[in-house]
Amino acid sequence: MVARPSEFVLISRLFAPLATVPGAFGLTDDVALLQHPDACDLVVTTDTLVEGVHFLSGDPADFIARKALRQNLSDLAAKGAEPLGYLLALSLPSAVTMDWLELFAGGLAQDQCEFCVPLLGGDTTGTPGPLTVCITAVGSVPRGVLIRRAGAQAGDLVYVSGTIGDAGAGLAILKREAERVDDFLVNRYRLPNPRISLGKALRGIATASLDVSDGLIADLGHIASSSGVRLIVYADAIPLSRALQELWGRSEGVVVRAATSGDDFEIAFTAPPEADMAAVASTSGISITRIGQVISGQGVLVHRRDRTEIPITSPGFTHF
Amino acid sequence: MVARPSEFVLISRLFAPLATVPGAFGLTDDVALLQHPDACDLVVTTDTLVEGVHFLSGDPADFIARKALRQNLSDLAAKGAEPLGYLLALSLPSAVTMDWLELFAGGLAQDQCEFCVPLLGGDTTGTPGPLTVCITAVGSVPRGVLIRRAGAQAGDLVYVSGTIGDAGAGLAILKREAERVDDFLVNRYRLPNPRISLGKALRGIATASLDVSDGLIADLGHIASSSGVRLIVYADAIPLSRALQELWGRSEGVVVRAATSGDDFEIAFTAPPEADMAAVASTSGISITRIGQVISGQGVLVHRRDRTEIPITSPGFTHF
Repeated sequence: MVARPSEFVLISRLFAPLATVPGAFGLTDDVALLQHPDACDLVVTTDTLVEGVHFLSGDPADFIARKALRQNLSDLAAKGAEPLGYLLALSLPSAVTMDWLELFAGGLAQDQCEFCVPLLGGDTTGTPGPLTVCITAVGSVPRGVLIRRAGAQAGDLVYVSGTIGDAGAGLAILKREAERVDDFLVNRYRLPNPRISLGKALRGIATASLDVSDGLIADLGHIASSSGVRLIVYADAIPLSRALQELWGRSEGVVVRAATSGDDFEIAFTAPPEADMAAVASTSGISITRIGQVISGQGVLVHRRDRTEIPITSPGFTHF
Repeated sequence: MVARPSEFVLISRLFAPLATVPGAFGLTDDVALLQHPDACDLVVTTDTLVEGVHFLSGDPADFIARKALRQNLSDLAAKGAEPLGYLLALSLPSAVTMDWLELFAGGLAQDQCEFCVPLLGGDTTGTPGPLTVCITAVGSVPRGVLIRRAGAQAGDLVYVSGTIGDAGAGLAILKREAERVDDFLVNRYRLPNPRISLGKALRGIATASLDVSDGLIADLGHIASSSGVRLIVYADAIPLSRALQELWGRSEGVVVRAATSGDDFEIAFTAPPEADMAAVASTSGISITRIGQVISGQGVLVHRRDRTEIPITSPGFTHF
């Protein structure tokens, strides 16, 4: 174990190699120049991960780095945007070692490559508190096509990508609240998949969209309130992975738990009935499930097959 | 004292009113749209302030907010850029009260108005550690005129704006390390003045530039290393405020302390001898002092009037 290096060594050795575009100036200047395509809207978003709040102390450093980056990319994806770059603000406790930091930077390097997104700049400081990772991502979207939360209309259908509740189950496993370990579920907690190709395919198609971070029902509630509509979700239609069902089955309680646990980072969206979702799924390579409909009114209701309502006491997770 | 409100109340009541541009969507979406002028380069920068590291626990909340914002604006200013907006990521301990947060938001409101810079978005989370404020600022500069750190050439002269060492003295007063209290100096520590008008006036004139945050000598060292030159600084020329001299005099030790203490947020820059600094000072309304010259070589040397060298054991302050 090598003790934490100076800020200079940290930046020049670990992070400067991640600043792979000329505008980042090798992290040797006060700001970065943002190269961006013409005729595009630029979008920005920021997310913070705090040790003990958003990740566990024992989580591998590379997964922490990748999750921090991917969460931000997921916000861009849900809006139909593509990433241009990111800034990294790290607050490091004195106990952090060079080994840990190398693993952290290695995780970023891997994901930068996968998502074609360079480090543009950042800030490194010490803290007497927990490790805190704040990432700000910048993206671009063709002018005027950003997919908002507001925009869902009565008559639209409600969709979600992938499967729901896996990350919540993975967290339960890591907290030893589940009966057995399942690597798929743990991985779904540790490593979200920003649905960038899906967001692009939904440009001009989805009427409202966001990524599922607080919990499916809580996040659909944001679409409902922003759009001024009511969303009806069919409990039976909520897509659960085989791994989740093998762990816990598919009782009503499991479905509700899945739909109210956080960190899925799937895209939940609304679209008019005539939208061709088979084409969207095929273009993006990501599975899409219809889970409900939009009507007039407000809020989110979860219905059983017989149209009775399942009461939701806590629609999602809060890190606050 | 009212206890900390929910994240929703916090955002809708305190921070949404700061999101004064349409592209911020009233903080109700996952990202913000960045409105920007045509034919400009966009620049981004980020800075974190940690309680107990960058500010004192007892510092007033409005000053903490304003300092966090102003530090970022200072980075933009030193590059010749103008601010377009900022993102705020707040990690809040559970003890933070609504009163404190109202004061914090009030400080931001005041400075947004002064510097014409809207809140674009952000993130709020709890933390078991110290209060942490991470701000990311976005700015614009006419295409191709960003003032870099690299660019100083042998033959250039070295300049600095305002006065140096006031913030360090202010911090010493707050830590009860000074003989008496001086409000001007304390205020210089708590509330930096981003030199935006000076940065604009230096476009096309300064060959290298940065803001003095770590300490004048340490920061000039960054220009020296980025530009591949040596900077000679005349100790006698370093501008000290009347308040600082009334507190500590102007001995060599005081000058060295001033030139190696942090948080000045003045602009240090180089420019060719023919540049008209009287015009720059007049245009920007900010005082400028010539403090040295650029020669070939490396590093920063501080000279007495007789050209003997003053040894500098620690060129600046580090928060790391």
